[in-house]
Amino acid sequence: MTNNNGQEYLTKQLRPFLTAFLVAGVQNVVLSPGSRSTPIAILLGQLEDQGRLHLYVNIDERSAGFFALGLAKTTGQPVLLVCTSGTAAANYYPAICEAQSSNVPLVVLTTDRPPELQEIGTPQTLAQDYLYGQQVKSFYRLPVPAVALTDVERNYFTYIAQKSVYEALNFPSGPVHLNLPLRKPLLPQVAKNSVSDSDLACKPLIAPNTNQPDEKVIQQLFQLLNGKKGLLMAGPSVCQRADVAAIVDFAQQAQWPLVADPLSNIRGVDSAITSGDWIFKNWDNLPASYRPEVVLRFGATPVSAATASWLATSDVPIIYLDANRSLLDHTLSTTLALAHTPRTVLPQLDIKPVASDWIQQWQQLDAVIQATLTNGLCGVQLNEPLVARTLAQCLPAKSALFVSNSMPIREIDDYFNPQQPLKIFANRGANGIDGINSTALAMASQHQPAYLYIGDLAFFHDLTGLMMGKQYNLNLTIIVQNNNGGGIFSFLPQATEKTQFEKVFGTPLNIDIAAIAQLYQADYMKVTTVQNLKKALATMPDGLRIIEIPTSREDLVSGEQVLAKEITKRVQDLTHEN
Amino acid sequence: MTNNNGQEYLTKQLRPFLTAFLVAGVQNVVLSPGSRSTPIAILLGQLEDQGRLHLYVNIDERSAGFFALGLAKTTGQPVLLVCTSGTAAANYYPAICEAQSSNVPLVVLTTDRPPELQEIGTPQTLAQDYLYGQQVKSFYRLPVPAVALTDVERNYFTYIAQKSVYEALNFPSGPVHLNLPLRKPLLPQVAKNSVSDSDLACKPLIAPNTNQPDEKVIQQLFQLLNGKKGLLMAGPSVCQRADVAAIVDFAQQAQWPLVADPLSNIRGVDSAITSGDWIFKNWDNLPASYRPEVVLRFGATPVSAATASWLATSDVPIIYLDANRSLLDHTLSTTLALAHTPRTVLPQLDIKPVASDWIQQWQQLDAVIQATLTNGLCGVQLNEPLVARTLAQCLPAKSALFVSNSMPIREIDDYFNPQQPLKIFANRGANGIDGINSTALAMASQHQPAYLYIGDLAFFHDLTGLMMGKQYNLNLTIIVQNNNGGGIFSFLPQATEKTQFEKVFGTPLNIDIAAIAQLYQADYMKVTTVQNLKKALATMPDGLRIIEIPTSREDLVSGEQVLAKEITKRVQDLTHEN
Repeated sequence: MTNNNGQEYLTKQLRPFLTAFLVAGVQNVVLSPGSRSTPIAILLGQLEDQGRLHLYVNIDERSAGFFALGLAKTTGQPVLLVCTSGTAAANYYPAICEAQSSNVPLVVLTTDRPPELQEIGTPQTLAQDYLYGQQVKSFYRLPVPAVALTDVERNYFTYIAQKSVYEALNFPSGPVHLNLPLRKPLLPQVAKNSVSDSDLACKPLIAPNTNQPDEKVIQQLFQLLNGKKGLLMAGPSVCQRADVAAIVDFAQQAQWPLVADPLSNIRGVDSAITSGDWIFKNWDNLPASYRPEVVLRFGATPVSAATASWLATSDVPIIYLDANRSLLDHTLSTTLALAHTPRTVLPQLDIKPVASDWIQQWQQLDAVIQATLTNGLCGVQLNEPLVARTLAQCLPAKSALFVSNSMPIREIDDYFNPQQPLKIFANRGANGIDGINSTALAMASQHQPAYLYIGDLAFFHDLTGLMMGKQYNLNLTIIVQNNNGGGIFSFLPQATEKTQFEKVFGTPLNIDIAAIAQLYQADYMKVTTVQNLKKALATMPDGLRIIEIPTSREDLVSGEQVLAKEITKRVQDLTHEN
Repeated sequence: MTNNNGQEYLTKQLRPFLTAFLVAGVQNVVLSPGSRSTPIAILLGQLEDQGRLHLYVNIDERSAGFFALGLAKTTGQPVLLVCTSGTAAANYYPAICEAQSSNVPLVVLTTDRPPELQEIGTPQTLAQDYLYGQQVKSFYRLPVPAVALTDVERNYFTYIAQKSVYEALNFPSGPVHLNLPLRKPLLPQVAKNSVSDSDLACKPLIAPNTNQPDEKVIQQLFQLLNGKKGLLMAGPSVCQRADVAAIVDFAQQAQWPLVADPLSNIRGVDSAITSGDWIFKNWDNLPASYRPEVVLRFGATPVSAATASWLATSDVPIIYLDANRSLLDHTLSTTLALAHTPRTVLPQLDIKPVASDWIQQWQQLDAVIQATLTNGLCGVQLNEPLVARTLAQCLPAKSALFVSNSMPIREIDDYFNPQQPLKIFANRGANGIDGINSTALAMASQHQPAYLYIGDLAFFHDLTGLMMGKQYNLNLTIIVQNNNGGGIFSFLPQATEKTQFEKVFGTPLNIDIAAIAQLYQADYMKVTTVQNLKKALATMPDGLRIIEIPTSREDLVSGEQVLAKEITKRVQDLTHEN
């Protein structure tokens, strides 16, 4: 039963406005309920019933923001995020900051009180214009929908909707904010046939930005690369599958080593180098023969600090080819920045292959390091490196893995060597430990089988985010590596400051992971051995599954030191042999 | 054991800086751990060990922000809130918005990467300057502490620290943001005696702002009030106990009725009128004899929408005396706005009492309405109005009660009639349902016995906030009124929109409250009768206690309508009698 008592002008104005987002490419919408957003909420619900979009409802706006981020990140499509007025909108801020710094196309639509209620102390009324400051690409202040609707107004709304999606997608991708003031009464007219289809039509105005490089750029690049001993570095978030393919093909053609960040989605491809972090940590132990004559980088900042540090200090020419980030290089090492996608540039370069000993010595080095890790990580009881190593062995083909920040992403970088490329995601812009469960659940709504690798603090930080798993019956296996606190701080200088350490850095919370599983009706198991982890991963979950793995913060540093020492020894042995 | 390997210049610069906040009046500090804030965290931990401050550590920055808000709100003292760089800072935004709109003195210290790491894609680096836009009173960008420290720099830091506290406190009170860039290495020198006491001294520069009205204002006000049939309206958050006393004394002296908002902390005082919302809902049924000749308002916007609506449409002169909010009146009814505290103004007004029938008819009206509510709310099984009514009967003297937004605050307004004034708090600036558990736990750290009255959605929204209760062993009884969704929407026009209602407004989450209790090691009981609620409230909790009361969203509207009809009838009977 639908009501006939609502405002027809709201429907005539706002339904084409919402349709315009869909025309421009939005398929998924995340809504947090509230009063001021009433007409948008009802019209979105109706559009979903008509099969026009997927609507996710999440009452915690912080989680909702990260869920939207995850949808956009793992589909490559822009996502619309809608809330009511007041602090609801402020809760989106963490996800918006992450979207801005990791180039994720989000369109944030906040609803607001009308102008006559601003600045006079009206309850639940903030200054929402420019609420997200420099953390969005653009901000648009929409007018209050007019009771006497004109074509100009209707077209203005559909134009701004499409423009906002276009801006979110256009390189560098990122979040865009629209603030929509609404005046009571807020109920739209939703009776069937009250508004004709032609009233709701919206014509597309956006042409895709092909961003083709011109001929001169291709020639210049060819000159810089052809005949050189080159090194390819693929960082996180290489834009699309076509970019990954272009990079892999180029590596094959040029016979250049390809150092693959765990988030490049290239690890597991034949010939990709997995040991980048270990190699650059050991750079001073390597002979000059390993020195490339040119580096060609793609994607965002590598996870590996040693790699970034090598870039910062190397005198090798470094070409950074990335449509989103080529002008963002905190290593300050770039000698040529090209704001294009690999897929538009690399196939045009007809590079000749270099002599095969160049790539062979890199692959041999990678193999020695990986063999050393495999030998070093052969225990029965799980520790953190062994968890990462085991995941690489056991995750099924086509798995999607979300990796949390702080320790897990570093452990994946150092120990995760899959047999085939998997879809691996993380929030590596602002690198927060917030919103991880939500982002991973959004991934699980798009890719199966789905896994999240996370520490206890990040898992706890986004506790409410797990509700989306229960509400939408999403299949996700969460591997909670529980070292009871902040493991990363044990690697930092404050580890020597024993008096204050546990209070202000270690922060053990003694989280009852089993109780969390019960709260969300998740399957739960505690696993301490490699064998049991393998057994657990051999089955598929129905809904949420939480695998708790107790680990020790005390062992983290010493464990890494033992492996690092052994790797250094093997690297020295190898290069002395040669 | 303390380290000797840290940077002495960091300690010499930052310890006086932190001491300056204390000199200016900060007693409580809330810290969220991170790497960039390392020297601040260690020095704060040390200051706490020396008994100089209370330090609360909370890993979820959103909860931490609300915990700090709650400390500031319930102590009246400024609170310092400290985090690392990146999205950590963005998580503070909801609490900052609430502090700004409800005039709570917060000093937010975010730490940041140094200038040479800005704008070049450094991980975990946002544009933090002006991060909170218009939601803070002031923003200060501090310089990176210099290795070669000068007196000028040290004095600059201590000056800005004190100035920020002063601004947060000064009317209108609110949040202030400081962004502090720090350069590695981040470990400060903390060995004993490495820095002498005199190095750390900091002299106070702030004199309290007495904000005394001048003689002319007092005379003008006397002319407007003396001899009139006046009505006093005390809204939420009347600043200090001295203000409450001044208002109560003035009401007594002038023999004026005093309509007490539930958040005025005046309900329960002899002669205070509790039924404001019902009276103004029934205004058209009252004879002209109830019409005041002047209204004198204090505090923030009343919870009662009917009261605000009466103000907006009344032609009675309305004087708004409030140091924080007198220029924020969304009813647009103020005829004279005075930005002073009641305590500085009212004792200077030597008003003559008006004839006693004026106050008597108001008190009689109040008594009839309260008797009608008592008669109407006499069931055995609990419903939401009965919960609020029972709390008023059972909470012990000197209790502190935190009231959540959405339904609970409205129910407290309509049904809560305590025998004696209690300390009642709420977040009534932006009126969000976020951060309520955290704010209430902060209250519990300052006032005992402590109670929180909250619905299931708000309770869930700040699920991580409960951790502070477990970590700091805070005694708080949480009354969770579980109507499985958003009850408030049943009162709004969209309640007629049956097709979309449950999906985008009602949002039942079927939250397992008992599992949440287990997660935080809280006592848990489910209560359905008045008698059992009374029995439960007769005991004091040790730590967290959760009382779940299942209620029905379906009954909410009809239940209120029955009571409203009966009150209207009794009011008509009373005024026809007279």
